[in-house]
Amino acid sequence: MEQASHLGIAHHDPSVRWLDDPTPEVGETVRVEVEARGATTVTLRTVRDGEAVWHEGSRSRRGSWVFRLPCTQAVVDYRFLIEDDDGDRWLTAAGEVDWDPPDLWDFKLLTGRRTPSWVPSTVWYQIFPDRFATTGRYRPERSAVDPSYDWARWCDWDAPVASGRAAMAQMYGGDLDGVVERLDHLVELGIGGIYLTPVFPARSSHRYDATSFDRVDPILGGDDALVRLSREASDRGIRVIGDLTLNHTGNHHEWFEAATADATSVEAGWYHFIDHPDRYEAWFGVRSLPKLDHRSESLRSRLYEGPDSVVARYLRPPFDLAGWRIDVANMIGRLGMLDLNRGLARAVRATMDDLDPELWLVAEHFHDAIADTPGDGWHGVMNYAGVGRPIASWLGRTDRLHEMTAGPGVRSRTGRQAARAMDAVRAGFPWQVTLGSMSLLASHDTARWRSLARSDELALVGVGLLMMLPGAPTFFYGDEIGLTGDDHEAARRTMPWDRSTWDHRFLDWYRSIIAVRNEHPALGVGGFRWIDVRDDALTFLRETSEERLLVRAARGATPPIGLDCDLLGTTRLDAVLGADDIDAERGMLPLPADGPALSVWRLAQPE
Amino acid sequence: MEQASHLGIAHHDPSVRWLDDPTPEVGETVRVEVEARGATTVTLRTVRDGEAVWHEGSRSRRGSWVFRLPCTQAVVDYRFLIEDDDGDRWLTAAGEVDWDPPDLWDFKLLTGRRTPSWVPSTVWYQIFPDRFATTGRYRPERSAVDPSYDWARWCDWDAPVASGRAAMAQMYGGDLDGVVERLDHLVELGIGGIYLTPVFPARSSHRYDATSFDRVDPILGGDDALVRLSREASDRGIRVIGDLTLNHTGNHHEWFEAATADATSVEAGWYHFIDHPDRYEAWFGVRSLPKLDHRSESLRSRLYEGPDSVVARYLRPPFDLAGWRIDVANMIGRLGMLDLNRGLARAVRATMDDLDPELWLVAEHFHDAIADTPGDGWHGVMNYAGVGRPIASWLGRTDRLHEMTAGPGVRSRTGRQAARAMDAVRAGFPWQVTLGSMSLLASHDTARWRSLARSDELALVGVGLLMMLPGAPTFFYGDEIGLTGDDHEAARRTMPWDRSTWDHRFLDWYRSIIAVRNEHPALGVGGFRWIDVRDDALTFLRETSEERLLVRAARGATPPIGLDCDLLGTTRLDAVLGADDIDAERGMLPLPADGPALSVWRLAQPE
Repeated sequence: MEQASHLGIAHHDPSVRWLDDPTPEVGETVRVEVEARGATTVTLRTVRDGEAVWHEGSRSRRGSWVFRLPCTQAVVDYRFLIEDDDGDRWLTAAGEVDWDPPDLWDFKLLTGRRTPSWVPSTVWYQIFPDRFATTGRYRPERSAVDPSYDWARWCDWDAPVASGRAAMAQMYGGDLDGVVERLDHLVELGIGGIYLTPVFPARSSHRYDATSFDRVDPILGGDDALVRLSREASDRGIRVIGDLTLNHTGNHHEWFEAATADATSVEAGWYHFIDHPDRYEAWFGVRSLPKLDHRSESLRSRLYEGPDSVVARYLRPPFDLAGWRIDVANMIGRLGMLDLNRGLARAVRATMDDLDPELWLVAEHFHDAIADTPGDGWHGVMNYAGVGRPIASWLGRTDRLHEMTAGPGVRSRTGRQAARAMDAVRAGFPWQVTLGSMSLLASHDTARWRSLARSDELALVGVGLLMMLPGAPTFFYGDEIGLTGDDHEAARRTMPWDRSTWDHRFLDWYRSIIAVRNEHPALGVGGFRWIDVRDDALTFLRETSEERLLVRAARGATPPIGLDCDLLGTTRLDAVLGADDIDAERGMLPLPADGPALSVWRLAQPE
Repeated sequence: MEQASHLGIAHHDPSVRWLDDPTPEVGETVRVEVEARGATTVTLRTVRDGEAVWHEGSRSRRGSWVFRLPCTQAVVDYRFLIEDDDGDRWLTAAGEVDWDPPDLWDFKLLTGRRTPSWVPSTVWYQIFPDRFATTGRYRPERSAVDPSYDWARWCDWDAPVASGRAAMAQMYGGDLDGVVERLDHLVELGIGGIYLTPVFPARSSHRYDATSFDRVDPILGGDDALVRLSREASDRGIRVIGDLTLNHTGNHHEWFEAATADATSVEAGWYHFIDHPDRYEAWFGVRSLPKLDHRSESLRSRLYEGPDSVVARYLRPPFDLAGWRIDVANMIGRLGMLDLNRGLARAVRATMDDLDPELWLVAEHFHDAIADTPGDGWHGVMNYAGVGRPIASWLGRTDRLHEMTAGPGVRSRTGRQAARAMDAVRAGFPWQVTLGSMSLLASHDTARWRSLARSDELALVGVGLLMMLPGAPTFFYGDEIGLTGDDHEAARRTMPWDRSTWDHRFLDWYRSIIAVRNEHPALGVGGFRWIDVRDDALTFLRETSEERLLVRAARGATPPIGLDCDLLGTTRLDAVLGADDIDAERGMLPLPADGPALSVWRLAQPE
């Protein structure tokens, strides 16, 4: 039986497991615990007002050291120096290292700033309004189509999805009252939050080309339908967040029409005109998506500064959205030498915090968001880089990985490689940013996860793994019934409501893993710690002071691995999901060696 | 014969060797070359306006690929994806990796911003004015000491240095005209720049507790002496930079006296009073060093905004200093939740750029400066973290490493570990920041390098290595004649001018290595590339298109290593320093295996 690769290695993370308060207020002193077996001395190094400061620790229980860390700055950086008979090494957010790494590798604790408390324990369901459900009530009659919808090609609910540009004009007539009618499906699944892609009027099925931010699209049911959805969802314990594009509007947006009509208009200052009115900066040069210029004070106050802004309007009654997902947040305010991104993220956050610090602000981000998330702007990101892509790189079909998100940036990787990629992002983020991020394997921008995965078994392992990791797990409507789609257009097919067409193996699995997530707070806010990392299996702990869960995700069979009871601190693993109970044999807990498999156990308390 | 560990590995760095213009203007397209032998495809990934963009390359000469990279943003991030028959890997600024690292690992190219062109090729000499040389002209008579100097304890030039607090009051009476008189010593050494620690009046020998920024200390010779030094040095091709404390003043500074005398004074707003006049924020709580509050607009304009500021005054005629070293730059503007550091660095830089973009702004920084050096503020830092400490950790005495800089932060390390630490900092900095940084093994804040090193032989290897690395090499007056000093007070002993007391082995070595540095532009601006990294020896290339230098630094003997002529692109190494010529034998160039040793060769051009 092989030893687990990471068991016995020193560990700390800035979670409730190792800090008595992971969200300290300014001036608070936090109790910091670190496990470092065999250490003769452990020292904590932090940086205070720009200067390194060292704290002595005291030995607490066996293998554990405790420090008192004063939290006086917005971001408190720290790491540990562990000394034993063999020498010394650093314990950093990226693990143990025997050389002297930069402070960027430090653990990062936010002071006076936190992710809304409900976010990490909420399982999210992404709805693309045109395709999820319809009452048929708002769809224009074919004989009398409102000229605002002259761009649309109306389809029956079961018509196939087109590919390429034609897909953007395809309208199936989904509406928000349709979502209300189907809330029971979400309740049965155990969903706690709906992420709704845009509901503003637009000239495409995805609605990222808004023509106004002042009202909900009438063919979705208008403002009243959004209010109804928000209330009905809330009655069922489900929160709803909206989707706002701050990078650009549609070229038929009322602001852009005013801007092009009159070069002296206020709105003309809201866009980047190169040669008014014909030449202007646009999202990737796409003329229908003119880019907003956030240097304009009046634009900022209209969009996101203060209680009358667009951002604030839909978070207040009667809409009461629980937050915003911000479209292409990685691009907003960035153009050549201009970069207003961090300041505007802070401004949006400030407006939301003023209304209620429990509102969630999550940013779409396609690559490395570390430099963009110091904790004072976006609470977190759509964590493609730190979760979705590493899992896809491990379990996905090599020939389809480019569908994971735009660009050829995802490659097939082993478990060890995928774990390093996850670690690098988690280490770079303050822990609150990891908790405030969406974990996802698929969205309206990707192929369906089932179609990306190398097999159905691996699709189930992957989504199970997602559900067991830190970060708010999010999946795309219909993933739970086994829908497929080889690219993002195909993925946007309508939700079939005839249950006989559903894949109940998928549905049962999604229900089970969501139930496990909902029942175990450790999966929401608990610490994360590798136990064993190898090419075909990843095993880790999620832990609070109250409970410890062991998760094993395998893409194939592995050699038999034994966990040392002494190091793990238990002699029994109680099955939670996809596994049997395991009792110690001669001081070792033998892990199963099968795969593909996802198994979860609860560690029995030592007697 | 063993193979070199890094020869044949793909390589790029953002130097003149691999970019046709390493300091592009906005909108310029740069030719980017990367060596990737055996690759079937190489792709460049950059991030433009926040979004990943991929560029196809074209194969140029054998093993080399070329790209055209548009430079539209302040910092252009890029990396390479290398594909070959075995799979794919990234070439990042931190080397080749087979997993998917964050964008923080990207190469970083600054657009429209550059380090002053003369800095990378200048060897620096740090002078502590009270201890370097004296004319005796300005020293107060013992019988009639000016009351401004009632704190001072005047000593003879050869009196021993005290330890602890008493050292701060010890005055030896060095002056700036003394420096002028000794300029020939610097010329003989090959020095191109003098870094002068503070010359403002103060109440300590180190003068970091200024009592005014408006005049040069009369006992140094006053303003006129600084003008004389600047002119005389300039006549000999030597530039002089000053040393300015923006974090704090002395508590006898005229501003602080005005501030404490009157709570309504303008100056009272320049400090952080907690309870006027008795309680205020100070450097590490030291009451004699009250901390400046950079939220004050009038302080900023007095200190560093605009042509009438303190910063500008000494850079203009008649002083004509060539730049500033900024004291404790890592702390300035940082206090609890307040962090104005980046903005004020930008403001200082803007004032200097307005006078002349060839003025140098270098920041004292004791730890990881990566986040503080995006290129628009400090040109670079005193690179303890990326150069000095890694070398000291490799060659220094374990029991004295804590003297390298404050705190127990330096540990004994192997060559491999030291190289990783160097790589991490160099990878985190834009290349221009590496070139604009001081490389140093010692300063007025550390023990003498000779006393830190494990042996005299290793002291010579260490300073030779420093001289061969990217970054402006800087040493402390007297290091070149073999002075010792076990801590920073002992290090500040007076320079003995009786040449018979000098260690000529040290002097000859310093002259030789400085001459090599001065004669070979590749050591200033050339690229940096590991050839072989092992625990007891580090071998690397410094290269431009015109010349390639191979450097081997060994702390002990190593196994014999052979360099593949094909991979290295030459069949002969011409000795430059501490070595013999080497000719190829059966396609391999055999490196010497001795140590301690520092050897430099020039690669012969292939015929």
